[in-house]
Amino acid sequence: MSAQRKVFFVSDGTGITAETLGGTLLTQFEGVEFDKTTLPFINTPAKARVTIEYIDHIADSSGARPIVFSTTVNEEVRAILRTGRALFMDLFDTYIAPIEGELGQKSTHAQGRAHGMANAGRYQARIDAMNFAMEHDDGQSSRELARADLILIAPSRCGKTPTTLYLALQHGVFATNFPLTEDDLEGLRLPKALQEERSKLFGLTSDPERLMQVRSERRPGSKYASLAQCAYELRQAERLYRRFNVPFVNSANMSIEEIAAVVMQEKELRRQ
Amino acid sequence: MSAQRKVFFVSDGTGITAETLGGTLLTQFEGVEFDKTTLPFINTPAKARVTIEYIDHIADSSGARPIVFSTTVNEEVRAILRTGRALFMDLFDTYIAPIEGELGQKSTHAQGRAHGMANAGRYQARIDAMNFAMEHDDGQSSRELARADLILIAPSRCGKTPTTLYLALQHGVFATNFPLTEDDLEGLRLPKALQEERSKLFGLTSDPERLMQVRSERRPGSKYASLAQCAYELRQAERLYRRFNVPFVNSANMSIEEIAAVVMQEKELRRQ
Repeated sequence: MSAQRKVFFVSDGTGITAETLGGTLLTQFEGVEFDKTTLPFINTPAKARVTIEYIDHIADSSGARPIVFSTTVNEEVRAILRTGRALFMDLFDTYIAPIEGELGQKSTHAQGRAHGMANAGRYQARIDAMNFAMEHDDGQSSRELARADLILIAPSRCGKTPTTLYLALQHGVFATNFPLTEDDLEGLRLPKALQEERSKLFGLTSDPERLMQVRSERRPGSKYASLAQCAYELRQAERLYRRFNVPFVNSANMSIEEIAAVVMQEKELRRQ
Repeated sequence: MSAQRKVFFVSDGTGITAETLGGTLLTQFEGVEFDKTTLPFINTPAKARVTIEYIDHIADSSGARPIVFSTTVNEEVRAILRTGRALFMDLFDTYIAPIEGELGQKSTHAQGRAHGMANAGRYQARIDAMNFAMEHDDGQSSRELARADLILIAPSRCGKTPTTLYLALQHGVFATNFPLTEDDLEGLRLPKALQEERSKLFGLTSDPERLMQVRSERRPGSKYASLAQCAYELRQAERLYRRFNVPFVNSANMSIEEIAAVVMQEKELRRQ
């Protein structure tokens, strides 16, 4: 086993699918260091030949075959890429034939469809959702809250903002978020602006130690970041969620993607 | 060919990889309407059995085999999923064996690695980058601009903010953006705060008609949204970019992902 293995994500588009596919597979191998390079927009035979020259050069100089994850659609480009001195894994080689068989029709072989502007409506929905999320972040504005599909509530620094932006950017969900203030938490009251929107609420909570850690990076030594304050706010937040039947999740050990997946599922939100 | 084909993205984690993989493949088939459902966190045999009951029910009632894209790692879970009345396409079935052979080691079969908190350092970098992007959006703050890896500049509504947030959230790039004001554009000057940071700049431009359309959604009938004003600002912005050797791209027909891929490549930015 070599110390470092070179990995290439090759695509005629952005390379996002190749990165996601390959990245996921490589998480299954521990103790190997992967040196990853994305080569996007490889959409002509000429670019494919330059790519292969580069990959072969790496193969010769590193002494181990590079691993190539490819999502190129064009047959001619792919045929060239396949000639490299690498382990070549191509998404289309593998899966397009069975789907063509299942659907009884040929694929279009159109390049750059997955992450381009092919679906203008879906694209515009994501931009609109992102602008909405930015304008309403952290309760900045109560204007047009009725337009929201989802309103995240939580004490400060439980992950509201990144989750909101992720849902907007990735899925076009009209999401926003609202802080729970000391007054809300002490009185176990919902912020006034949210009282008409209870069906859209989802709560986040965390572990006191984790929240203390996150808040301490921002304001070290403050009451805000103290363990007692964090524990108090989280306890009251959970009481508040239960009181108003707001579904919630503990985000302490979850990534943004995981929180987003739970919220989408719980609130039955559809991707745009 | 049936009118609508049911598609499931099944995963023991968030389902992001299955969605990306399957979504990309399905863009290659036109004229078929796909009804997509993501089933995340299918990480036990019991959940797999419920999933299969549901998929089989859909198969029977819709009259066409559903298509299932799976990224589940657990062998037992996968064996159950494979029994459904569906076209079953599994990422691990296909690719893990060749990679194991290439690396000369077995995969770990650890669940939820791809989009979870497995890599805490990478995760924290993304959150830090997102906070940085939010605090500095649209030139709100010049504080800590020296920390930025990338500063996008452009006239209003060319795509600075969504691209910045995408780069931060997806790739952990410390990106920010700065507007070009009328004064900057007229005098062909860089904003003062950016003069020390010229090597980090990347410019966006657009087409006058496209910019007019985007601005009109925000402020219909305004001078800001007029074709003449849009054309003037874009022309001056391009002159400014050329004057200061700022690389730039026309974002008019590009998705956020495509702009981000171009910027990463041009500025040789590394994903975190």
